[in-house]
Amino acid sequence: MRIWDVDTPAVLVDLDRVERNLTRFQAYCDRHGIANRPHVKTHKVVEFARRQVELGAVGICCQKLGEAEVMASAGLGDILVPFNLLGPAKLGRARALAERITLEVSADDPKVVDGLAEAFASAPRPLPVLVECDTGAKRCGVQTPEAARDLARRIDRARGLRFAGLMTYPAKGAPARAAAFLAEAKALIEAEGLAVAKVSSGGTPDMWRVHEYPVVTEYRVGTYIYNDLMEVACGAATLDDCALTVLTTVVSRPTSDRAILDAGSKSLTSDLNGQTGHGRIVEYPEAVIYALSEEHGHVDLSACSARPAIGEKVRVIPNHACPVSNLFDRIVTVRGDRVEGSLAVAARGRVD
Amino acid sequence: MRIWDVDTPAVLVDLDRVERNLTRFQAYCDRHGIANRPHVKTHKVVEFARRQVELGAVGICCQKLGEAEVMASAGLGDILVPFNLLGPAKLGRARALAERITLEVSADDPKVVDGLAEAFASAPRPLPVLVECDTGAKRCGVQTPEAARDLARRIDRARGLRFAGLMTYPAKGAPARAAAFLAEAKALIEAEGLAVAKVSSGGTPDMWRVHEYPVVTEYRVGTYIYNDLMEVACGAATLDDCALTVLTTVVSRPTSDRAILDAGSKSLTSDLNGQTGHGRIVEYPEAVIYALSEEHGHVDLSACSARPAIGEKVRVIPNHACPVSNLFDRIVTVRGDRVEGSLAVAARGRVD
Repeated sequence: MRIWDVDTPAVLVDLDRVERNLTRFQAYCDRHGIANRPHVKTHKVVEFARRQVELGAVGICCQKLGEAEVMASAGLGDILVPFNLLGPAKLGRARALAERITLEVSADDPKVVDGLAEAFASAPRPLPVLVECDTGAKRCGVQTPEAARDLARRIDRARGLRFAGLMTYPAKGAPARAAAFLAEAKALIEAEGLAVAKVSSGGTPDMWRVHEYPVVTEYRVGTYIYNDLMEVACGAATLDDCALTVLTTVVSRPTSDRAILDAGSKSLTSDLNGQTGHGRIVEYPEAVIYALSEEHGHVDLSACSARPAIGEKVRVIPNHACPVSNLFDRIVTVRGDRVEGSLAVAARGRVD
Repeated sequence: MRIWDVDTPAVLVDLDRVERNLTRFQAYCDRHGIANRPHVKTHKVVEFARRQVELGAVGICCQKLGEAEVMASAGLGDILVPFNLLGPAKLGRARALAERITLEVSADDPKVVDGLAEAFASAPRPLPVLVECDTGAKRCGVQTPEAARDLARRIDRARGLRFAGLMTYPAKGAPARAAAFLAEAKALIEAEGLAVAKVSSGGTPDMWRVHEYPVVTEYRVGTYIYNDLMEVACGAATLDDCALTVLTTVVSRPTSDRAILDAGSKSLTSDLNGQTGHGRIVEYPEAVIYALSEEHGHVDLSACSARPAIGEKVRVIPNHACPVSNLFDRIVTVRGDRVEGSLAVAARGRVD
């Protein structure tokens, strides 16, 4: 079966490109002695998570406990959830999950640490907890190296918890600033006599620069498995590295300059991520997807010499691959234009 | 159980508000003799589709054949799919579906009509086909009333098809322009001796003005069941009419002015739809959700007198309700702050 026989819209994932993307970054990590801990948020596919570990990843990273539960059931045994877990429901689930696998979490506030400590006070083994640092991304995280030290101390003193190191999601393009914060926090914590077993950073955009900052011992990358226009724009990947495309049909050609696709924001998402259009049409790169309705992509063909006919199928490289695969229950696996089969996006919909 | 006991993020749907939203517009349609054909794209919940029909809707509207298949299996017997269906896979499914229910589709191009005609040539009863008109929204649709007439004639002459009328998705705020196009096309078609059995328009923003344009005999509304900030902004609803909220936890309070929610673009979507923020926090209306990561909402509290504590749950009215419910497998049904139960978003993921 050829990809052109797949009904649309559909997510196509090229397995050759996936393999190349995974092995290339794993080789980079191996060369530089960096622990690779891929973030499954991009694919949410258990087979891909297993492959990442087979290739040498130390474990995986899940942003949601629900995703971690799915991955644990699929045999993934080492999972970091870099998220503040709060409230009895999540703490109870974390406690149960930690009995099945090696679970690690993060915290950026004494209240989070205290909640974890209460939930794990009687656990058979202590829960490893990383201190999340806001090193410039202005999301979660303690604001100063001193606050990181204080929280590390609090974790260390809590029964049921073990201080496991530092974690950050750095601002894009600012790994130096992140490294400086982390190095300072590490020194302060070590001065207290506490070991900083790991320093975990992440982000696909700056993934080829990790080795420049030796304070970072572990790296979390998500998008690198598929890549997308955002990663191409920031130089982390090329168009040939984009493994995920949305196969879509030109369902209307109302005017000579306009084509309408059967992929809209419910297939491509509204994420712009710095791009001006809503994805790149592989077969018509001069075409501009200038607007999306929920189930329609609006395309301007005025810059195109060749133009697609109604009924023709085309592939779109999305701006941002992660939320796209999150919209589909299954992905179609391909190699070039041949269909191999399909895989369940098993952790999709595990929103909490 | 109270809503505050629900784990987050979760979609809460207030059944009292749903009922009020549905009955109010149905009453309006009844009063003005307009056929109400709700678009299920907003909710994708079979129980709500059934309720819409119970209250007096003539049938439902589905943007995807896959959604129509789910709704048909749930007993919905009259479905319009206002979409150009192309290719053997979709035409075969349409043919099968038309044997189970009253299916109606639209077309804006001779190639679409010819494909439908071929698929339905031997069907036990003709497929009703509407001509889609581009009355200003610049999406799909024939460009002139004359082209509408020509396509109507082609449908009428095709074995297996029946010309059923006109359809448009009008530009927001421009129902007069749409009505003028439709009236002209209708007159041209009637001058050919063809009956125009219905004229179908749609869109929640202008739903209270349908009666001003008597050429429109049927109206398709989706968002009116839930409403959202976009509908409030254009005056179609008030904040009290917003039935869907995303329950989320304040998972981090890194600074005095910043709160981070556990609902990001994978819960709220990146749809701005004319809004500046990414949703309105019911309990802290001065707060601004100024950015979204995939699993984090970034909130500026600087304008708030009272500020939420870490661990506190809040409700967010989204900019655009339709793609939000599309991200969740189930919705939690509530009345005020009491939880009633939950419902499957059964047609979610039926992307093709």
